[in-house]
Amino acid sequence: MTDNTPPNRFAAWLPDWLRRYQRAAITGDMTAALVATLLLIPQGLAYAALAGLPPHVGLYASLLPLVAYAAFGSSMVLSVGPVAVLALMTASTLTPLFAPGSAEYVAAAGMLALLSGVMLFVFGLLRLGVLAQLLSHPVISGFISGAAVLIIIGQMRPLLGIDVSGASAVTLLMALVANIDDALPLTSMVGLGALALLVLARLFLARALVRLGLPAVRAALAARLAPMVVVLGAIVLVVIQGWQNTLHVVGTLPGGLPSLTLPTSDWSVIQILLLPALAIGLVGFVESVSIGQSMAARYGQRLNPDAELRGLGAANMASAVSGGFPVTGSFARTVVNAEGGARTPMAGLFAAALMALVLLGFTGLFSALPLTVLAATIIVAAAGLIDLNTLRHAWRYDRTDAVALLGTFAGVVLFGVEAGIAIGIGLSLATLVWRASRPHIAVVGRLPGTEHFRNVNRYEVETHSSVLFLRIDENLFFGNVRAVEDRVLSELKRQPEARHLVLIMSSVSRVDGTALDTLHGLNKELAKRNILLHLAEVKGPVLDRLARSSLLEQLSGKVFMSAFEAEVFLAES
Amino acid sequence: MTDNTPPNRFAAWLPDWLRRYQRAAITGDMTAALVATLLLIPQGLAYAALAGLPPHVGLYASLLPLVAYAAFGSSMVLSVGPVAVLALMTASTLTPLFAPGSAEYVAAAGMLALLSGVMLFVFGLLRLGVLAQLLSHPVISGFISGAAVLIIIGQMRPLLGIDVSGASAVTLLMALVANIDDALPLTSMVGLGALALLVLARLFLARALVRLGLPAVRAALAARLAPMVVVLGAIVLVVIQGWQNTLHVVGTLPGGLPSLTLPTSDWSVIQILLLPALAIGLVGFVESVSIGQSMAARYGQRLNPDAELRGLGAANMASAVSGGFPVTGSFARTVVNAEGGARTPMAGLFAAALMALVLLGFTGLFSALPLTVLAATIIVAAAGLIDLNTLRHAWRYDRTDAVALLGTFAGVVLFGVEAGIAIGIGLSLATLVWRASRPHIAVVGRLPGTEHFRNVNRYEVETHSSVLFLRIDENLFFGNVRAVEDRVLSELKRQPEARHLVLIMSSVSRVDGTALDTLHGLNKELAKRNILLHLAEVKGPVLDRLARSSLLEQLSGKVFMSAFEAEVFLAES
Repeated sequence: MTDNTPPNRFAAWLPDWLRRYQRAAITGDMTAALVATLLLIPQGLAYAALAGLPPHVGLYASLLPLVAYAAFGSSMVLSVGPVAVLALMTASTLTPLFAPGSAEYVAAAGMLALLSGVMLFVFGLLRLGVLAQLLSHPVISGFISGAAVLIIIGQMRPLLGIDVSGASAVTLLMALVANIDDALPLTSMVGLGALALLVLARLFLARALVRLGLPAVRAALAARLAPMVVVLGAIVLVVIQGWQNTLHVVGTLPGGLPSLTLPTSDWSVIQILLLPALAIGLVGFVESVSIGQSMAARYGQRLNPDAELRGLGAANMASAVSGGFPVTGSFARTVVNAEGGARTPMAGLFAAALMALVLLGFTGLFSALPLTVLAATIIVAAAGLIDLNTLRHAWRYDRTDAVALLGTFAGVVLFGVEAGIAIGIGLSLATLVWRASRPHIAVVGRLPGTEHFRNVNRYEVETHSSVLFLRIDENLFFGNVRAVEDRVLSELKRQPEARHLVLIMSSVSRVDGTALDTLHGLNKELAKRNILLHLAEVKGPVLDRLARSSLLEQLSGKVFMSAFEAEVFLAES
Repeated sequence: MTDNTPPNRFAAWLPDWLRRYQRAAITGDMTAALVATLLLIPQGLAYAALAGLPPHVGLYASLLPLVAYAAFGSSMVLSVGPVAVLALMTASTLTPLFAPGSAEYVAAAGMLALLSGVMLFVFGLLRLGVLAQLLSHPVISGFISGAAVLIIIGQMRPLLGIDVSGASAVTLLMALVANIDDALPLTSMVGLGALALLVLARLFLARALVRLGLPAVRAALAARLAPMVVVLGAIVLVVIQGWQNTLHVVGTLPGGLPSLTLPTSDWSVIQILLLPALAIGLVGFVESVSIGQSMAARYGQRLNPDAELRGLGAANMASAVSGGFPVTGSFARTVVNAEGGARTPMAGLFAAALMALVLLGFTGLFSALPLTVLAATIIVAAAGLIDLNTLRHAWRYDRTDAVALLGTFAGVVLFGVEAGIAIGIGLSLATLVWRASRPHIAVVGRLPGTEHFRNVNRYEVETHSSVLFLRIDENLFFGNVRAVEDRVLSELKRQPEARHLVLIMSSVSRVDGTALDTLHGLNKELAKRNILLHLAEVKGPVLDRLARSSLLEQLSGKVFMSAFEAEVFLAES
């Protein structure tokens, strides 16, 4: 093995970025870690609450996952940890099973992280990074916007202190409106106040700071730390006013680092968690890759989806063994991390160290933090996820995409996140099949004096009444082969004297099993009508594959090298 | 409007087949109706029991749906009514909600039929027949085989009289094995006896009848009626032995025709039923279309998927208003119908009339029918649905298909039918994305002395170090555009002097929204590296669509009519 790095056995096991780490990057990475942690603390507490978990679980999930991702991931600036959508999915998986916050609930949340971590890691080893392309952008956008709406509706409860429940987001919203009189006055006041501050900060703070003389990038970064400022302000307010007993507050958080244990659940619970874990893993992966890609593009880097699978898999396993819950790359914190100056995952390691420091000494700070303020930070973060731009572009560029986006959005809002993913996957597939359902097929004939075959509608070509030449311009698969068959039969109807059908396969690179079945059926049906089916210009790999089936043996006609060869042979017969 | 049928206003509203109906078809249609009804009675009773419904509901679902399908469907021989897979899906949807057999359960089953009927009918009006191609054959095969295994495991309970339950098929099977000692002796004896007879009939009866001198087609048909013979034999046995109280029997069935009422459910229940109704409707449609297509191909007819949607939609609505449950085309009864001589849906109308007769006068006959015998008929029918052939072919022809088949099968068996469909749709999509993840892209150069561009690996062509020409040979969509981007960037790495990238789009017929986003990103990224992105030979419809986005405005380079034009322009610059 030749390598131009020093022949150090230990170094060979280190991630690439660490071996090449330059001292100059340290300042940026440390600053970034500091600002990212300032955002990570309120978000960690908030997303744990959103997931139905004790708030400190969110801090646990913000420690080892950063280290694990730094070891296995491929993005230089991705910030891994709790995120809103996965927290929502965790809650929607576990609330039907256990009482939120109970020991079983916490253990099952860890098990979800473990299962999805193992799945992602294995997918990474199998190099299934291509899964990142499973969903179209419009479907992802519809899914995330729908999840954001669910989160906002759900967080109205802690925000206003109304204790209602609903089977779906719609019924919950109706229950909230019906019971709006039950809102706790102080809770609502503090929560809505925090919400107003956060909204104002998001809309105007960056601009205001620029006017005060801060450079634009710094101003944007500072504005993003508004949640921490609001959280600290709320704590001070609560302590000064002595509202600890009037408001629901975070309460005493266990101090110290999480102890390392493997989460355990009954086999029957694990069985129920398998599918949700897969859904959580895939959604986290898709979300994280799109964040990582946009960041990588900004800095002229490339993301390796297989390494991302391993990185996120390792991060989730790390979260699971340290008392956390499912994690993935966070958009807001990644931006803060990057704008804070992070150039390598060393920033993540520094952030983990800072988080460890917080856990060791400063958890007491947050005991007076009111839950309504956490709800306000979640609502503002979720509102930022609602994406109307993609809808607008899709509406203008391609209505099918817009329909898929709206369908996924409606599916999530009406039926919840898991059904929403299933609907999104279904709509992605339906879009493909819909678009493939009018494949391009041309009736062709020979250009006089040449061996070339061209579309009869565009060229003056020679045709024969007894031979129909059809050129198929698409790969054949289950989504379009019925349409191809229909077209073939309708062309044969127009040329009833045809005794030979030659399918020119020069543009076909793939024929899937369903298409093969249909070709078999077509072959039989044509044989009954005394029409022989021939193939021409079949690509090598396609021919090799067809040879593994019985189609070529059963074919009523022949396989010709070229359409010209077919014409010469068939015109003579 | 000109029409060559007589100007009869009434006739214009009749289905095509009825206007052209010829007396000669009557004998065949009547014989077919008789044999199909002889199979329909035991299957109707059995599938209602499988769905958790009172047995007579299965007969109700075998009456009006036949009439409705005859009015709207397009298959000449499809026999519509209760089928095993939809019965299973009905049970798995409703058992978590209501007590099986209760009035709410029956009403909700009708509501499922109503909802899926309305959805299918509307899809038909929207001409969404293309939905029939949503799933690949291997995925459908895996789904149906998995459902059959679930059915067989579930029916072991009534077959042996063991009263156990399990959250999944696996736990149920383990519970059955653990409690095998609880099997009721007489129930098991009668059930296993019936099972043995049915298996023997399926394996040997047709051949035996041929040896006795019956023509092969008649023998096959007679052998298919074994369930009715076994059912009648069991009834006689029970009555003679006086086992009505020792065995669980069907009991008194309400006589007379079903009364017509719209099923009603609470809005909250309807909301829960919407997604399962969609799943039931789509599975029924896909199953029915594949049966209808294979039959149509056999008789040289064509099936119209849009009409099928309307036909099945109408059949389900008819089932709903007449006290039934979800219905679709049945493979076994369609074969019996066709081999019995049916040539038009008139056979269905006759069968409906016979079923009405049975309901009016002969339901008393079936009161002594033991449930264990019904279980035996279900098990044999379900065993016939298990399809190893498709797996064998897929394994040989294309492993990806085999993996999708096995994944869907495992999904259904481990997680149930609804999760199984979601997994099947996901795997269909994953297969497409997997196959698309290595799109064909060629670096091309100009054939000296011509305006043609060819692959640099196959031809001696002229290239320029400052211009890279790439020909994209696939439609661009969310599943392959990342791979295209990767390939583009790696080719640029090999040719670092390149200042111009020309994408030759001659083979690209579609660019979806996700691909558009990626092209936008590529354009920006290349601009940063001082590489201009050009497009050439963009097809008219693709160019029209791109013009609706801002890509063409923001493109760093130009759009050229041909690669040659691009070369001339760029070589000069």
